[in-house]
Amino acid sequence: MSAKAGKLIGVGVGPGDPELITLKAMRALGEAHMIAFFAKAGNESHSRAIAGPHLRAGVTELPLLYPVTTELPKCTNRYRDIIRDFYDSAAATIAAHLEGGSTVAVLCEGDPLFYGSYMHLHARLAPRFATDVIAGVTGMSGCWSAAGMPIAQGDDVFTVLPATLPENELTRRLADADAAVVMKVGRHLPKLRRALKCSGRLERAIYVERGTMADAKMIPLAAKTDDEAAYFAVVLVPGWRQRP
Amino acid sequence: MSAKAGKLIGVGVGPGDPELITLKAMRALGEAHMIAFFAKAGNESHSRAIAGPHLRAGVTELPLLYPVTTELPKCTNRYRDIIRDFYDSAAATIAAHLEGGSTVAVLCEGDPLFYGSYMHLHARLAPRFATDVIAGVTGMSGCWSAAGMPIAQGDDVFTVLPATLPENELTRRLADADAAVVMKVGRHLPKLRRALKCSGRLERAIYVERGTMADAKMIPLAAKTDDEAAYFAVVLVPGWRQRP
Repeated sequence: MSAKAGKLIGVGVGPGDPELITLKAMRALGEAHMIAFFAKAGNESHSRAIAGPHLRAGVTELPLLYPVTTELPKCTNRYRDIIRDFYDSAAATIAAHLEGGSTVAVLCEGDPLFYGSYMHLHARLAPRFATDVIAGVTGMSGCWSAAGMPIAQGDDVFTVLPATLPENELTRRLADADAAVVMKVGRHLPKLRRALKCSGRLERAIYVERGTMADAKMIPLAAKTDDEAAYFAVVLVPGWRQRP
Repeated sequence: MSAKAGKLIGVGVGPGDPELITLKAMRALGEAHMIAFFAKAGNESHSRAIAGPHLRAGVTELPLLYPVTTELPKCTNRYRDIIRDFYDSAAATIAAHLEGGSTVAVLCEGDPLFYGSYMHLHARLAPRFATDVIAGVTGMSGCWSAAGMPIAQGDDVFTVLPATLPENELTRRLADADAAVVMKVGRHLPKLRRALKCSGRLERAIYVERGTMADAKMIPLAAKTDDEAAYFAVVLVPGWRQRP
């Protein structure tokens, strides 16, 4: 690292509502020479849209376009090779700018180190460059706040589960936690519904799509059909059964 | 509810760093007629300190002082009666202001509906008054961001555990999760250390005190002695073992 090397900043821009960005994120965006953000080719980046009003004039933009998203199963070696090469290449590009002295802000929906793609850059670059991570409001906080639903209290055990787990694992883990958030619901909804029913959690489960957007959709899961569910939809299972 | 009744707003002010407040929280604080906040008698309120610069001139302040904190065991009926009466009384006081048409903002460290005292007011008042909840950056996000430590990725199962659990429960649940945050560490540190060791998680555990404060303390738990630990200290156990 040269004496004048720049800094990598992971900037959490919050869950979607443009007002749920922090002062610290705004300041970092206003100071960065370059912003980088992950996106799917052809789609607008949510994090870029949220950050837009806070960027400094003339900032350089570096979109990082995923080479694959859902075309290949994640368990295959081919997927892992492609995605590893992609992160290696993105990190190398950013490293060149850091070596040149630039401050590079990587935009992150939600919180950078909580299920975020930024982590792949951080793991590759933090050993070589100065880094800073600006915590953000997570998508799940945005969802339960928009729903006005207390999620966990006191000595509750809270857990985050991917709906990709096998049905018996989902059932066991839902039954074992006081409160839960299930992510990546999408096509796993019928399986998740069976797991919620079997674990006695279906009655209190809430289905949420685009939780902090103007067009948010929130309904008790028991009142929703299985026919369609967004990949990024979440299901909230509130705890806090013993309210004083 | 009268036609001109006010609104209750749970305002997440973030984990401690004054810059980790959101634009939405700032706007709500600037518009509220009254702010309420929980505090321990004789202690400065963290949330009040964070909110201070953003309050409107002449705002009315309502400190809600806990009648008990750690003097009585939480499992006793006497504790539950006292604390229930306290929340009932606080809610009644706020209800009177809402009926008079005031907008009342309740300051919440972290996120209002994630292990926050605000939930006790929300549960009592939401059936009668308009409410709004403004999500905040949680204390745990503040901690892992300050530590620069990726916590969970991909299909990781993430869990939040109170250190108050029995040792065998802690051990079992730590072994069963990919990533974990353990809260309320304090005097439970020796027990927690045994549970981390037994579950094979000790080597990657990080002890964090005052995570987003200027005087933050972060060290690998394996390098820390058991002799003192703050009640609000957390232990982070990062997941994400299979990095592409």
